[in-house]
Amino acid sequence: MPRQTSRDLRNESRFEVLHALFTLGPSTRQEIAKHTGLSPATVATLVTQFLSEGVLRIATIEQNTVGRPYERLTIDPGRGRILGIDVAETYVDATVYDVLLQPLGQSQVMLDEHQNGQTYVVDGIVRAIDAAIADGGTTRAQITGVGVSMPGQVRPDAGVSVFAPNWDWHDVTIEALLAERLGLPVYVDNPLKAIALSELWFGVGRTTKSMAVVNLGTGVGAGIVIDRALLRGETNNAGEWGHTLLQLDGRLCRCGRRGCVEAYLGVCGLQTTLAEIDPDHPALREAQQPGFVAAVADGLTRGDSALAELARRTSHYLAAALGDLVNLLNISHITLTGWTTAALSEWLIPAVRSELPDHVLPGSLPDLTVEASKVPGNPVALGMAAFSLEQFLGTLGLASKASLPATGRRLRSPV
Amino acid sequence: MPRQTSRDLRNESRFEVLHALFTLGPSTRQEIAKHTGLSPATVATLVTQFLSEGVLRIATIEQNTVGRPYERLTIDPGRGRILGIDVAETYVDATVYDVLLQPLGQSQVMLDEHQNGQTYVVDGIVRAIDAAIADGGTTRAQITGVGVSMPGQVRPDAGVSVFAPNWDWHDVTIEALLAERLGLPVYVDNPLKAIALSELWFGVGRTTKSMAVVNLGTGVGAGIVIDRALLRGETNNAGEWGHTLLQLDGRLCRCGRRGCVEAYLGVCGLQTTLAEIDPDHPALREAQQPGFVAAVADGLTRGDSALAELARRTSHYLAAALGDLVNLLNISHITLTGWTTAALSEWLIPAVRSELPDHVLPGSLPDLTVEASKVPGNPVALGMAAFSLEQFLGTLGLASKASLPATGRRLRSPV
Ligand SMILES: [Zn+2]
Ligand SMILES: [Zn+2]
Repeated sequence: MPRQTSRDLRNESRFEVLHALFTLGPSTRQEIAKHTGLSPATVATLVTQFLSEGVLRIATIEQNTVGRPYERLTIDPGRGRILGIDVAETYVDATVYDVLLQPLGQSQVMLDEHQNGQTYVVDGIVRAIDAAIADGGTTRAQITGVGVSMPGQVRPDAGVSVFAPNWDWHDVTIEALLAERLGLPVYVDNPLKAIALSELWFGVGRTTKSMAVVNLGTGVGAGIVIDRALLRGETNNAGEWGHTLLQLDGRLCRCGRRGCVEAYLGVCGLQTTLAEIDPDHPALREAQQPGFVAAVADGLTRGDSALAELARRTSHYLAAALGDLVNLLNISHITLTGWTTAALSEWLIPAVRSELPDHVLPGSLPDLTVEASKVPGNPVALGMAAFSLEQFLGTLGLASKASLPATGRRLRSPV
Repeated sequence: MPRQTSRDLRNESRFEVLHALFTLGPSTRQEIAKHTGLSPATVATLVTQFLSEGVLRIATIEQNTVGRPYERLTIDPGRGRILGIDVAETYVDATVYDVLLQPLGQSQVMLDEHQNGQTYVVDGIVRAIDAAIADGGTTRAQITGVGVSMPGQVRPDAGVSVFAPNWDWHDVTIEALLAERLGLPVYVDNPLKAIALSELWFGVGRTTKSMAVVNLGTGVGAGIVIDRALLRGETNNAGEWGHTLLQLDGRLCRCGRRGCVEAYLGVCGLQTTLAEIDPDHPALREAQQPGFVAAVADGLTRGDSALAELARRTSHYLAAALGDLVNLLNISHITLTGWTTAALSEWLIPAVRSELPDHVLPGSLPDLTVEASKVPGNPVALGMAAFSLEQFLGTLGLASKASLPATGRRLRSPV
């Protein structure tokens, strides 16, 4: 049974002080102690260390009613810059943040989905990074770390893209490739882990113990949080809700299996459903997935009856598939994210809320919440920046038990 | 973010020393230190405390090659007796154990499934307990605790049977009712949590980090272990894999939903499948479920072709439904338990192993193991005795973070 050493405990206390400042904004030592449950003496000691390390600075000095001065502390935003990168099959989104994870600049580079070379993809990432750095008015020298979300299966502890189906990549040491090109610390992970972390830091995860952050886009999946910790699984592959069953022996999924949730709720799944309803529907003539989703949203606004039936069936599939997550995990919160959510949430979410009780065991239903994520910006890029920030804090002797993989040992991928 | 205090840490160290002795058998201080990762000094201090409290005793004194004597320690089996009770809709199984969880005596009392009164059920439990105590040659005065698994939804932190569908029980304070009748400390939980704990203590959980313990019987469900801790969920309802989808809008399940795994893999589900294959099959004339399952096993041995088709379809359903567990949770081990498993594992398990790769994402497949549980005896009773033992150790200032619910506060059920 693995245990925390007293050193882990101290590091976790340090992390909590910083995390409290992310959550609360500029705060007094008393407020930090109250929020974290740490003793005032411990908080005072840690704050003194942080001030001497330049991690924190004094934001304001105020006086209380009896005229005694007190200080509000904040993480020093001048301490460095962090990059969060969302690499998908067709684009690279790069955002540069300050250490409070406020966005400073952004860029997007399109990738040709028919190119799969490592050099081609790495070049695209580097171009996106350089453009974001320029957009943010900063320099590579100011960057303290880069968090990169890669599609497919990723082993962050090894820095390896184990398998990227679209590119047919196997065991590509992407972290080392990028670190060498950039001369910067790089952390790689997969987008389900990134959306979960951004929801933990900036969404409902700030106040909930367990949740699923459900991505609806080309692919579908869930970032799962149990007892405030990311569920990674044995090989960092947990959360593949898109490849659980909706319909045994049903539609062929791109993973090769039949009947997966993704074959009904991924954008291709929506197209298949619409083709079942009306094979000649004009929305099906959109060549690109984003165009299709936009056409569906437009048509729903106009009262198109075939699209209303598409929304009805899609909500039914979604309610059923979310019900499985709740029955298995007994989580209290589901947030939806991804570009299908962004376009269609006003049609999907009320219908899902109304049908969900038919799919959930009574004991898991009270207080169950389903809503669109309120995390701002690109949640994948933000989550990756948060991972990178945690890595940076780790170099200061900090570590978060909640999200970091296998702290202290870097397994070379055993897969 | 909840933290361990140093007191939690010390208690967990105490628990680990005892748990090491369960796992290793009689051991030296050095062996305990090696197994737990605790320092030799910490182990020596804790062992001295345990010896003075009478929790441990010296099993043997041996000499090493240079003639220096060393002691092997063991948990004092004379310290008390523990009861583990498996309450199902149709029977109560009671087993009395020593504090090493070796069974000493056992009894079974049948319940009339048409009776649902609290007094009737409590009487049945008390009769089973008294018979087990007599069979074990012990007395109520020697019993240090009783762990009782109740069907349906249970809140162990409140001691309440929140909902037992078969009996139409709502918010029955079963722990208090039993504690009053027995004059003994009672701990209640549900069978999915019990089978997971018994597998953690006595099965593959001793060496794995994550697993699902899958029960196949009248009902089906999974005890889930993540990072060596029981997954309880927000209201202790996690693990209801039996009520995740196999087939959207498929067979009606007894939970009221359509298409649940249980409607295909519970015993009624097997009967439905056989009726689809051959509605006149003689096995369907068995009035009771155990008789049906026994008839299926007999017929398979004789080469009955309809039953071979039943085994084929059932294995297909099981492989698909287990694939969902793996894709979502990325666990490394699945063990099967329950009386359908006991009767049919030789037909189901090889077929499931062969089909599972078709359902599991490649990255989650390496090292994935599916096998029948090797936990001896009734795993529900054993797991409940283990919970009760943890409670007893808790009264000695011990606690296991891994399995106890909400230590320190007893929520009155908010559901
Ligand atoms: Zn799939
Ligand atoms: Zn059901």
